[in-house]
Amino acid sequence: MAETFRIGLLGHGTVGSAFEALLAERADAFVPITGMRPEISGVLTRSRGDFEEILANADLVVELIGGIEPARDYVLRAMRAGRHVVSANKQLLSQYGEELWACAREHGVQLRFEGAVAGVVPVIRVLQESLAATRVERIHGIVNGTTNYILTEMASRGLSYDEALRQAQELGYAEADPTDDVTGRDAAAKMAILARLAFSTPVHLDQVVYEGIEHLTGEDMEYAKDLGLGLKLIGTAERVDAGISVRVHPAFLYPGHPLASIHGPFNAVTLESDTITEVTLSGPGAGGPQTATAVLGDVVSAMIPPASTPETTEALTVVNDIESAFYLHMEVADRPGVLAQVAELLGMQGASIKSVVQQGLGHDARLVMILHPLPESRFYAAVHLIGQLDFMRSSPRAIRVIEEEFI
Amino acid sequence: MAETFRIGLLGHGTVGSAFEALLAERADAFVPITGMRPEISGVLTRSRGDFEEILANADLVVELIGGIEPARDYVLRAMRAGRHVVSANKQLLSQYGEELWACAREHGVQLRFEGAVAGVVPVIRVLQESLAATRVERIHGIVNGTTNYILTEMASRGLSYDEALRQAQELGYAEADPTDDVTGRDAAAKMAILARLAFSTPVHLDQVVYEGIEHLTGEDMEYAKDLGLGLKLIGTAERVDAGISVRVHPAFLYPGHPLASIHGPFNAVTLESDTITEVTLSGPGAGGPQTATAVLGDVVSAMIPPASTPETTEALTVVNDIESAFYLHMEVADRPGVLAQVAELLGMQGASIKSVVQQGLGHDARLVMILHPLPESRFYAAVHLIGQLDFMRSSPRAIRVIEEEFI
Repeated sequence: MAETFRIGLLGHGTVGSAFEALLAERADAFVPITGMRPEISGVLTRSRGDFEEILANADLVVELIGGIEPARDYVLRAMRAGRHVVSANKQLLSQYGEELWACAREHGVQLRFEGAVAGVVPVIRVLQESLAATRVERIHGIVNGTTNYILTEMASRGLSYDEALRQAQELGYAEADPTDDVTGRDAAAKMAILARLAFSTPVHLDQVVYEGIEHLTGEDMEYAKDLGLGLKLIGTAERVDAGISVRVHPAFLYPGHPLASIHGPFNAVTLESDTITEVTLSGPGAGGPQTATAVLGDVVSAMIPPASTPETTEALTVVNDIESAFYLHMEVADRPGVLAQVAELLGMQGASIKSVVQQGLGHDARLVMILHPLPESRFYAAVHLIGQLDFMRSSPRAIRVIEEEFI
Repeated sequence: MAETFRIGLLGHGTVGSAFEALLAERADAFVPITGMRPEISGVLTRSRGDFEEILANADLVVELIGGIEPARDYVLRAMRAGRHVVSANKQLLSQYGEELWACAREHGVQLRFEGAVAGVVPVIRVLQESLAATRVERIHGIVNGTTNYILTEMASRGLSYDEALRQAQELGYAEADPTDDVTGRDAAAKMAILARLAFSTPVHLDQVVYEGIEHLTGEDMEYAKDLGLGLKLIGTAERVDAGISVRVHPAFLYPGHPLASIHGPFNAVTLESDTITEVTLSGPGAGGPQTATAVLGDVVSAMIPPASTPETTEALTVVNDIESAFYLHMEVADRPGVLAQVAELLGMQGASIKSVVQQGLGHDARLVMILHPLPESRFYAAVHLIGQLDFMRSSPRAIRVIEEEFI
C-alpha cells in the first residue's frame, strides 16, 4: 500500500472541480514516481468546509479561490504551518507576491504557481529553472486567451468587437463581465509576475501600464491585413536603459514574429536573451482541465525529489507498422489507362485517394496523389507493385503527410 | 564570502568552452539564488586532466564529451561516487539510458540532461515535471536544426539539397560529415529519449525507425508549395493500439500545424494529451551558447532547493516612457497641405515616417502612417497637436508596432 499524500483543496469552481477529476483519474500513475498516492483530504467552498480542519489534515494546500481575501490569509496560514502551497491566483501574486514568497522562504516551504500565468504553458517553471542560467532581456506574451480569441475572430471572420465579444461569451471564452480581460488588467497581472521573476526586482500590478482592446475596430484589422501584419494584445516586460518597462497594449506584429501565429484562445510567451536568441512556449491559456494540469504538475513536483528519472512502469511494444497519410509522386508515360492501373493497385491495398493531379510533360506525365491514412506496410506494398508497371519512367516517390488540423 | 560549488567539466569543444564562458559571466548572479558560487574546478580533455583527480575535487560533473565511451564510464563512476551529473549526450542516453538512470536512483544523485534534446528548448524538464500530471498521447518534434535549416533554404530559396547542405556547412549549421543529421539518426536518438520519458517504457535508439532528407528534391518542395504544405523532418512518438510508435521521417504539414512555422536552425516540440490539447516549445536547437545555457540551467537546478522564489536582488525602476514604433490612422479633409502639416508636427517631436498611405474618400481622405520608434511621450504629444488641426475629421488612432524581425 502506497502512503497517502493529503491535499487540502480551497475553492471548487471550474479549475477546482477539474483538478479533483484529474487527480482521481491520475492518482495511481503517481505511485511509482513518488511512492505516494495523492488524495484530496478536504475541500473548502463558500458553503462547506472548515479551513483549520482542512489544514490540519493536509500535507499540501491547493488554493483556487482567486481574489485577495480570504485567499491571502489562507495561503499565509498554510505556509506558516509548514505546508507547501500551490496556487493559480494571479491577482494575489501580482499584488502580494513579495509577502508570500518571503513567507515561503522563512518557513522553508514551496510556493508553486504555474497555473497563475498562461494556463498549462509552463512559463513559470521555464523562467525560474530552465532559463535560470541566462539574463533575460525581454519577454513578449499573449497571456490572455479571451482577448486573443476576440482579435482572432475579428481578423479572420470580419466580426466587430461587440460581435466577437458576444460570441466569446456564448462559447465560454469570456465571462459575463469581461472587464478584467478586455481592459488588459488580467494580462497586466500576469506580466507583473513574469517581470518579477525575470528581472529579480519587485514589480507590483499597479506599476504595469495597460491598454485594452475595446477601442479596436474592424478597420484596424483591415489595415493590419493590408500591411501584412497581425494585431494582438501583447504584454511586454523588458530591460530599458533606465530600468525596466512592463506594459500591455494592442500591437501590430510582423508575420515572422513567433507570436503572430498564435490564434484563438491560445497563449504564448517569447523569452529573449543574448545567449538563447529566443524561446517560445505556447498552448491553451485557460480552461479547467488545462489549468488543472498545471496545478497538478506543481503538486507532483512538490511530492518528488528533483530530477529523478523513475524506473519504467510500462513495457509497451514499439510498433513499426503504423498508419500514415501519403503523398505519392510518379513520372509516367502519357498514355491511356495509366491512372486506372495505378488506382487499381492502390485500391487492392486499401489505399483511398484524397486528391490527384496529373500534368502532361510531352510524351510523359506527372501524377501526384495525396492518400488517406493506411498502414504503411500496405502502402509500400502498393508502391512496390506500381514501381514495376511498364509505363513508369522512374521510381515512385513517397512522403508522409501529417493530417492533423490545428486552430 | 559565498561557498564555492565545484564543477568538474569533461570535454571542452564548442559547448564545453561556451559553458565555461557563460559560467564565468553568470557565476555571481547565482550567489543570491543558491548561496554558493559555481566554479570550474577541473577540465578534462583528450590531452589534459585526470578524471579521478577532477572527480575528487568536484561537487557535480558536467559531461560534454559526447559518444559512448569513455563518456559512459565517467558518468557511471561520477554517480557511484555520489556526484550529480549534467550531460548533453543524446547518443549515450538513447542507448544506455536505463543503466544510467538506474545508477542515479541507486546512488540518490541527480542526472540531468536538458541539453541532450533540442538545445535550450526546455522539453525534458517540461515533460518530466510540468506535464507530469497528464498522460501524453503524442509528441511531434523538429529536433534537428541542421536538417530544418537545409529544408528551409530549399523551400524558401529554391536551392537543391546539395547546395543547401554546402551552405549549411559553410555557416557552421552542418558538420563536415553530416551523416548523423541528414539520415535522421540524430533526431532518432532524441525521439528515443522523449518517448522513454513520455511513456515510461524502455525505448532504445535501435527501436526507432528513421528516414532522412537526402532523397528530397526541389520538386518535392514545389509540390509542397502548390499544395499549401510545409515539408519538414518530423520526429513522432505516439501511443498506438498495440503499443507505441517512435519514428523520424520527412512529412508534409498543413499550415496551421504548430511546427509548420518553425524555420531555419530552430527546433520545436509539440506535446499532445487530452487534458492539455497541445503545448509547443520552440527555440534554438543547437549552438554553443544555447546548449550551454541549457546545461548551466541544469547545474543551477541541482544546486538549489526546488521552487524557491529567491528574494529580489535588484531594485530596478519601472519606466513608463519607452520607445515604440506606431501605426497612426487619421481621417482628414481632402485638401492641399494636409500631409505637410501632419508631417511637420510629427517632425517637431522627432518622429520619422517609415511608410504612408493616403486614400481619397470623396471630400475626405484617410491617411495611414507607420512611424519609426520614438519615445511614447513625444509621439502622444504630436498626436495631441495633430488632433487639434482643423482638417481632422475624427480623433487620430494610434496602435503600437512591434518591429523585430525573426527568422
